Amino acid sequence: MSVTSLEAPRWDGPLPTRDAVAKMIDHSLLRPELTPADVEAGLAVAVEYQVASVCVRPADVAAVAGALRGTGVLVGTVVGFPHGSSTTATKVYETGELISLGAEEIDMVIDIGRLRGGDAAFTQTEIAAVVQAAEGRPVKVIFENAYLTDQEKVAGYRAAEAAGAAYVKTSTGFAAGGATAADIALMRRTVSPAVRVKAAGGVRTLDALLELNRLGATRFGATTTAAMLDDLEHRRSGGTAG
Amino acid sequence: MSVTSLEAPRWDGPLPTRDAVAKMIDHSLLRPELTPADVEAGLAVAVEYQVASVCVRPADVAAVAGALRGTGVLVGTVVGFPHGSSTTATKVYETGELISLGAEEIDMVIDIGRLRGGDAAFTQTEIAAVVQAAEGRPVKVIFENAYLTDQEKVAGYRAAEAAGAAYVKTSTGFAAGGATAADIALMRRTVSPAVRVKAAGGVRTLDALLELNRLGATRFGATTTAAMLDDLEHRRSGGTAG
Repeated sequence: MSVTSLEAPRWDGPLPTRDAVAKMIDHSLLRPELTPADVEAGLAVAVEYQVASVCVRPADVAAVAGALRGTGVLVGTVVGFPHGSSTTATKVYETGELISLGAEEIDMVIDIGRLRGGDAAFTQTEIAAVVQAAEGRPVKVIFENAYLTDQEKVAGYRAAEAAGAAYVKTSTGFAAGGATAADIALMRRTVSPAVRVKAAGGVRTLDALLELNRLGATRFGATTTAAMLDDLEHRRSGGTAG
Repeated sequence: MSVTSLEAPRWDGPLPTRDAVAKMIDHSLLRPELTPADVEAGLAVAVEYQVASVCVRPADVAAVAGALRGTGVLVGTVVGFPHGSSTTATKVYETGELISLGAEEIDMVIDIGRLRGGDAAFTQTEIAAVVQAAEGRPVKVIFENAYLTDQEKVAGYRAAEAAGAAYVKTSTGFAAGGATAADIALMRRTVSPAVRVKAAGGVRTLDALLELNRLGATRFGATTTAAMLDDLEHRRSGGTAG
């Protein structure tokens, strides 16, 4: 199940450096069918390109934390992923366990149905519990925007900020829709500058990444990391393909 | 994201009673976007038709256990759902919590990537840990067959039986494929009669259900419960539509 790629016009603004873009990328290794060998190959890409972090499955955290030590790439993982339907107690337990195993960033999924039912107070309480369990590591809160109205989104983003989230994040990449320009703009104008915006789901081209960055996203969940960064290098060196 | 409906020829064998078929159905209320009101409506269907159980999201178990008390419909829920990528420790914690909240059946997802990587011993150890945490409640083990080769499936089904699983189950309903006739037959001939077979994902018609039942499945995850049981009632009363 893949989200449709986000389309964006050819970027004609100034090009950031490859290193700068790499440090905006969480290289995503979340598909449930990835084998240990697939994960190992993904880590090699993450280290080669010096991305901000990998975003790996909980069951991989212990091994990945060992493999990435000293590489400059952070270990990120997910909690309540991808449905967000586990209990708060399980999310808290999972967060604590993953931190103890070496996770340095936590991407959690909210209880989507509860927010849709109008209970943003629950959303805030649950996020706050995970933030506390994360003991200072940044928590990125995934809203799975594809299921939410704009009113629900705004209530959720505000709850995340009030609960101490470091980021609001668009999507898991496993629902019917992913990041959109409209949602990034809505997120950016809803939360204060203290909260950052992460785009995920369907960000597969450099043009899409740069466009969402212009709108306020500063972190990106991506699987096409190598292709996007190679494209950037090519354009910076005067090439026109991509 | 919905699995394609399984197609089956018009059933021309003897028709079981509506009650007998109802007691083969786990009425599924797992979609992440369901609101509390959606869940409540689903419970009403489950009680009206007297299905075997509902299969609800972990975050709903406490409320559902209260609502279903005395109705004759069991409370089922899911662990590590739908990706199976949480750690064994989190799956064990989640199972224990859900049992304490009133869950009577547990549908757990295996670590798919680990089985694909050839480590069926891990699969067995993890299932055994969840079975122990379930304290005698039946554990149904979801393999997400869509991601597995037949060799991996067989290794996994055997691991489930060795670990004390009550059921092997085809799918979550959230991957690219769901239950198939070939997989039900493979499951049935791989495990001993002590282990039952549950079909889930794409079982949307009475014909599909009865065909998979003929092949050995005795429990079905379903969302079209009312339509299938109404169709059965209609056929039994001499109607031909459906």
